[in-house]
Amino acid sequence: MSKNLTSRAEDYSKWYNELVVKADLAENSAVRGCMVIKPYGYAIWEKMQAELDRMFKETGHQNAYFPLLIPKSLFEAEEKNAEGFAKECAIVTHYRLQNDPDNPGKLRVDPDAKLEEELIVRPTSEAIIWNTYKGWIQSYRDLPLLINQWANVVRWEMRTRLFLRTAEFLWQEGHTAHETKAEAIQEAELMNNVYATFAENFMAIPVIKGVKSESERFAGAVETYCIEALMQDGKALQAGTSHFLGQNFAKAFDVKFTSKEGKQDYVWATSWGVSTRLMGALIMTHSDDKGLVLPPNLAPNQVVIVPIYKTDEQLEEISKIANLMMGDLRAKHISVKYDNRTTLRPGAKFAQHELQGVPLRIAIGPKDLENGTVEVARRDTLTKEVIALDNVTSTVENLMTEIQTALYTKALNFRDSHVTLVDTFDEFKNVLETKGGFISAHWDGTIETEAKIKEITKATIRCIPTDEVPENGICVYSGSSSKGRVLFAKAY
Amino acid sequence: MSKNLTSRAEDYSKWYNELVVKADLAENSAVRGCMVIKPYGYAIWEKMQAELDRMFKETGHQNAYFPLLIPKSLFEAEEKNAEGFAKECAIVTHYRLQNDPDNPGKLRVDPDAKLEEELIVRPTSEAIIWNTYKGWIQSYRDLPLLINQWANVVRWEMRTRLFLRTAEFLWQEGHTAHETKAEAIQEAELMNNVYATFAENFMAIPVIKGVKSESERFAGAVETYCIEALMQDGKALQAGTSHFLGQNFAKAFDVKFTSKEGKQDYVWATSWGVSTRLMGALIMTHSDDKGLVLPPNLAPNQVVIVPIYKTDEQLEEISKIANLMMGDLRAKHISVKYDNRTTLRPGAKFAQHELQGVPLRIAIGPKDLENGTVEVARRDTLTKEVIALDNVTSTVENLMTEIQTALYTKALNFRDSHVTLVDTFDEFKNVLETKGGFISAHWDGTIETEAKIKEITKATIRCIPTDEVPENGICVYSGSSSKGRVLFAKAY
Ligand SMILES: [Zn+2]
Ligand SMILES: [Zn+2]
Repeated sequence: MSKNLTSRAEDYSKWYNELVVKADLAENSAVRGCMVIKPYGYAIWEKMQAELDRMFKETGHQNAYFPLLIPKSLFEAEEKNAEGFAKECAIVTHYRLQNDPDNPGKLRVDPDAKLEEELIVRPTSEAIIWNTYKGWIQSYRDLPLLINQWANVVRWEMRTRLFLRTAEFLWQEGHTAHETKAEAIQEAELMNNVYATFAENFMAIPVIKGVKSESERFAGAVETYCIEALMQDGKALQAGTSHFLGQNFAKAFDVKFTSKEGKQDYVWATSWGVSTRLMGALIMTHSDDKGLVLPPNLAPNQVVIVPIYKTDEQLEEISKIANLMMGDLRAKHISVKYDNRTTLRPGAKFAQHELQGVPLRIAIGPKDLENGTVEVARRDTLTKEVIALDNVTSTVENLMTEIQTALYTKALNFRDSHVTLVDTFDEFKNVLETKGGFISAHWDGTIETEAKIKEITKATIRCIPTDEVPENGICVYSGSSSKGRVLFAKAY
Repeated sequence: MSKNLTSRAEDYSKWYNELVVKADLAENSAVRGCMVIKPYGYAIWEKMQAELDRMFKETGHQNAYFPLLIPKSLFEAEEKNAEGFAKECAIVTHYRLQNDPDNPGKLRVDPDAKLEEELIVRPTSEAIIWNTYKGWIQSYRDLPLLINQWANVVRWEMRTRLFLRTAEFLWQEGHTAHETKAEAIQEAELMNNVYATFAENFMAIPVIKGVKSESERFAGAVETYCIEALMQDGKALQAGTSHFLGQNFAKAFDVKFTSKEGKQDYVWATSWGVSTRLMGALIMTHSDDKGLVLPPNLAPNQVVIVPIYKTDEQLEEISKIANLMMGDLRAKHISVKYDNRTTLRPGAKFAQHELQGVPLRIAIGPKDLENGTVEVARRDTLTKEVIALDNVTSTVENLMTEIQTALYTKALNFRDSHVTLVDTFDEFKNVLETKGGFISAHWDGTIETEAKIKEITKATIRCIPTDEVPENGICVYSGSSSKGRVLFAKAY
């Protein structure tokens, strides 16, 4: 395994691409824009899924599964949503191949097997789900309906990057229905908070909660809540969104309910999702020029033990110690792997585990056998210490928490030092080009100004922060009046 | 909730369809042949997934994810596989919609967004996976490669039925690569055994292990191992298959490895899968005219507690008891739900839980409060008994095992009494039409005879059982010589 990564300073984008491939997380496939998620990458995604799924269930949601393919007529029903996704849809038009009479051994689309109505590979599932909810909701007794789906979706993106933007990606999409507007808004906020908690406690990524400006809103939403993270190159990454959909989909699909008082009304809706894009955020937030750095709470292997030996007797003795150690660590719910492969030398193993971000490496060599010690190396700080065998379990247990916290704190400090208040457009452009990060600036609230700023600087409004303090000011671009600052950044 | 199901005797097929819908397991969607898996049905599937996933990991497999869409040229590469699936493929030909100039507000396929090469929505993933493995396998050190994928697949079936045969279904597909033929065969057999163990221990379904005849083999396989179950109507259901693929895919995708001795050779392959079809098998094996019957090992709620009360004080007292009981049961890893909905009367709750197959119902009423008892009702036998509060935990714990075993034994007895040895074709036809089930008969081993028998009787060879005893005989149809009996049946 070649571990010479391009450094972040040299070429951040190249560093990322190389890291994803070399750490065995994912790779490009033969299908334009679609990735293969390799076992190590998928194992991290599985850990994310497990925690999110637990959090969704704890907040009262159930999983279900809806069709991959959406008839075009359903897709069209909510006009804004359809418009928002129409330009990047994979469309199924035929249902059969046949032998190609002109090319023996080859197949061609059977022209007689044309569908009467084209089917859209879901880019998001509001349409098919709300069409289904129509049959499920009659009365207030059927509400709230709190459903989540784990699924693949396809959006025909033109420029793709592993995890960050792929034509097919994996995600979860929650779709809920409520009696009242207030309850739906509360749900949208709740799920945005769930995402923030997950990002902070498991991914060790600090996020800013807020709402999107109109032009950045989900197609079909009344309000889009989001969490925004900051990557090491100073670009922002939208890590999750939660939409208050008002009655838009209920009206488009005619989903009404009878209230306790016997009145008929359209139901209120939310939808919310996070995707394998989170893998990109995780990688870019913590990793360094030596490779991946994983927070213990999401590492498939939290600890790896590497034996260093010359003789079979030494290996035997080391293995005995390693096995005892693993028993103790597993009893504390710490995942640990004994890397006793004979095909690789210790140095090569060290390099691989470093590249793959295993939080803690324990090496046991001949000297350790004599002294009753082991060497413990942290991936995040690259520091090592020799500790007594008796202290391994407690030390490792403490380090798991310590590393998780240290990664979060480091990311938080970086993020906090990269939120810059600016009051002039020159400053805006200057900070954006030199320092990067979030720019907190006054904005006049118009789509036109937002578009102009984007055109000139490529920065977009990432969010209007939830904890924004009302403050009168003048728009950094137009000079018109503003009631508060919003966060701009270049973004993934 | 209307609970009047058509009885099995009246119309088995109608009974099944009604049950799936009324028990809230799944329903047809707006997309031809595609189903919506409802939360209750999905919760059962999740339990299956969790156990299977654990078993796959315990046998050394890792999960990964490969693209949904397969370029036609890759799909064509393994000729037999392509031929086998070509006639039931959903084909993506375009990647963009546009506003329809003739129909304001409607969308149409953008004729300028035609793909250069069509993409097939995966009906199975051998092609894309083996094309990927080419890059992953160079040396014996890269082998074995033991990978599983949880995914959705699409097969354009013309006649569909909820869970049993749907255009889109959920499944897992294992794809492994090995150094030797023997090792690959061993893997294919191992995974067929894993499926059998899962079916028997969790689904409480006895299965017959065997291999398929040539004409029933997976397209592209050298040998197809399978597990076959028997439904209550006497029809067989293939519950899982595991394929030894020889070097067919390795040759089609040019996947070679360098052996320890430095020789180049094509790798040996297997693939194996089970799908949401298992839900159909589970439902049809155990359920009765009152609804679903679930084995405790797969029931989302193993126990439900229903309070019966007239006064608020009674409810309060009952709730106190229920909460203590739930604490005790959960400590024993028994899942339990307290059904204290105020919108339904106890009778309606009983009917719902019966319909939905909750293994055990505990009712607590005013008399129970006086006597320190509860009423425990078994779903499988529909028997009730009143037991002392003190004995609830141990009784429930024992009943979980007892019900699981009872369901398996009942299904096994039914299956065993429906395997009939026949030696003449008249007997064959007679047994098939009157008794149904598996028919153990001699077969001359030719595709022609198999086809003739299928044409005349609709019965197919379900498998050549693994535990078949060599026995010379004469083919039940052709009179030619035969070396052993095979199992015929009509099948789902
Ligand atoms: Zn900086
Ligand atoms: Zn019978």
